[in-house]
Amino acid sequence: MHNERARIRQLGRRSDPACEPYDSTAMGVTSKDIARVLEISQSTVSRALRGDPRVSAATIARVLEVAERMHYTPNLAARSLITRRTSIIGVVVSDITNPFYPELVEILHNEFALVGYRTILLNERTDARLERYVSELIGGGAVDGLVYASAVLDAPLLGAATGRIPIVLLNRSSDWVEADTVVSDNVGGGRLAADLFVRHGHRRVALITGPENTSTARDREVGFRERLEAAGMPLDPHLRRVGRFSHESGYHWCLELLARDPRPTAIFAANDLIALGVLDAARRLGLRVPEELSVIGFDDIDMARWEGFSLTTIRQPLAEMSRTAASLLLGRLSADEPPPARTRVFPVEAVLRRTLGPAPD
Amino acid sequence: MHNERARIRQLGRRSDPACEPYDSTAMGVTSKDIARVLEISQSTVSRALRGDPRVSAATIARVLEVAERMHYTPNLAARSLITRRTSIIGVVVSDITNPFYPELVEILHNEFALVGYRTILLNERTDARLERYVSELIGGGAVDGLVYASAVLDAPLLGAATGRIPIVLLNRSSDWVEADTVVSDNVGGGRLAADLFVRHGHRRVALITGPENTSTARDREVGFRERLEAAGMPLDPHLRRVGRFSHESGYHWCLELLARDPRPTAIFAANDLIALGVLDAARRLGLRVPEELSVIGFDDIDMARWEGFSLTTIRQPLAEMSRTAASLLLGRLSADEPPPARTRVFPVEAVLRRTLGPAPD
Repeated sequence: MHNERARIRQLGRRSDPACEPYDSTAMGVTSKDIARVLEISQSTVSRALRGDPRVSAATIARVLEVAERMHYTPNLAARSLITRRTSIIGVVVSDITNPFYPELVEILHNEFALVGYRTILLNERTDARLERYVSELIGGGAVDGLVYASAVLDAPLLGAATGRIPIVLLNRSSDWVEADTVVSDNVGGGRLAADLFVRHGHRRVALITGPENTSTARDREVGFRERLEAAGMPLDPHLRRVGRFSHESGYHWCLELLARDPRPTAIFAANDLIALGVLDAARRLGLRVPEELSVIGFDDIDMARWEGFSLTTIRQPLAEMSRTAASLLLGRLSADEPPPARTRVFPVEAVLRRTLGPAPD
Repeated sequence: MHNERARIRQLGRRSDPACEPYDSTAMGVTSKDIARVLEISQSTVSRALRGDPRVSAATIARVLEVAERMHYTPNLAARSLITRRTSIIGVVVSDITNPFYPELVEILHNEFALVGYRTILLNERTDARLERYVSELIGGGAVDGLVYASAVLDAPLLGAATGRIPIVLLNRSSDWVEADTVVSDNVGGGRLAADLFVRHGHRRVALITGPENTSTARDREVGFRERLEAAGMPLDPHLRRVGRFSHESGYHWCLELLARDPRPTAIFAANDLIALGVLDAARRLGLRVPEELSVIGFDDIDMARWEGFSLTTIRQPLAEMSRTAASLLLGRLSADEPPPARTRVFPVEAVLRRTLGPAPD
């Protein structure tokens, strides 16, 4: 230990004493220097720096400690070529301006950062060349894995990524790909919403759902219809609208639904953002919520609890789901034998706030 | 041209005709194959593929065309080592769950994607190890440049990035670093807000500002105070609160301000998210807006125009600002001689909606 310190001091003399820690690259500290200090081989140092299990935990700890003291900064491109790892994870979302996704991105980002992975964000809504971009990332070896939060049912994943690198589907599932999948019980959530409306005496119930090629919209509707039928009041096809998962869609379709006579007394929105648009449309028309209109959303994003909305919604445990997705992907990245695809389904719960009330007379 | 086609067909025969375009890496098409088809040197192909100005535009076009037809996918790590470019831009935001940032990130992301750059997202709010992470990205050569949307006034930029790679500061400026800077006229925006309150007869005016170590909070307050003073009603220190740029801060401080007697009749919030919290607090207390309380925000995020808020605000042209930041950074990346640091200041404007009215009697 004492010898190590002396050797670090000696190496340190090569550099300007005033220089900042971040000038390590300029000083040119390499894994060879670390090896010399510790009197072990350079390949052991390289293995230790990338956490290779063939190196003992004690050695890894010593290497990391010396690397830190010497302000060693790896050349990431060189390391990528050698390890064929980039320590970058791609996160594909369908629309970063939908507040559901920043919440998910933040959790994923932090989970991966904790173990030294960076995240590249891919935004499906506006990325005209996203397909090409994803395939280049994967084909070019620029990402080690993908978390895919924008899968659709009617097309293969972008970039035909399957089998090339580990993938985890988060929030939405796909029939097209065998991959680790983390979803919530969307059918069960649809059932909960229908049960709440039935229990509150609503008979004219409407649905504003999201894109029909998403598993979330499909499954929430399946559960919702099932329980309305069981209560002897199947969903009226005239009270069903299909939009995007956006405030604008909820606003637009709600104005249109409320112009009907008789108008619906309850609306189930396939996500919270649609539901917030519904509440704004009701406000625009001067309709009191919940006295004249009840609304239930899905997700429980942060905004759902804001005073101006106080939205009754079906909560999916987004933080736990995102952490599980990260951990499945990391497990797959470190596995010698890729495990078979696994699916985790998280329970949902109704969060009762102020947008649900008894049906008006 | 005819010969090229024949050679591509011949090369194509090596592969399974059913294989997807994305299997190019598996097929192993290299720059050498492209060189053979075009009967030019491999180094010319490599230069053409990275847009080196020493190669004629006509040759670049032919190389790109053949590369596309042959489904060539570059190995990004190898290319990084050779060109010392990664085609990755880091985008540092202070809080991705603040809807201001996803709007900005989406625009930057698309601008960079159009010219073949990927973006790595860095989120300051929750990234405990962000400082280390940024310095590794930069020191390790993992990003070609940074857009920095979370600069603060009282500390150097994370990772001591200055001088190592090109940086553009967006939205917030810094006194600590000579870098291209894209901001809006925050002082002018503060003046506009004060003028509007004065013109509507408000005398008890409050300010809820953001962190004092941000140029945006500082400059908006400077302009706001200046015009209140000019109108003979300097800001009462008892009516000034400092929070974070969050809904929660706006909600919390507004409840506290409105508990005062006499209470303020107008509140200027240093950003829209604070203003939305203010509106929710007023709603919580049953106060009518704007009859009993006027509110002005700053930014004009998408939500400001939602029916439930209809927020009067100072608009900064975020899309143009983000595009300008991207273009300054790209210009710096391709410049032979780095230009001196430039600052672009965008004008702001008041957007009058329904949260501003005459002072109550």
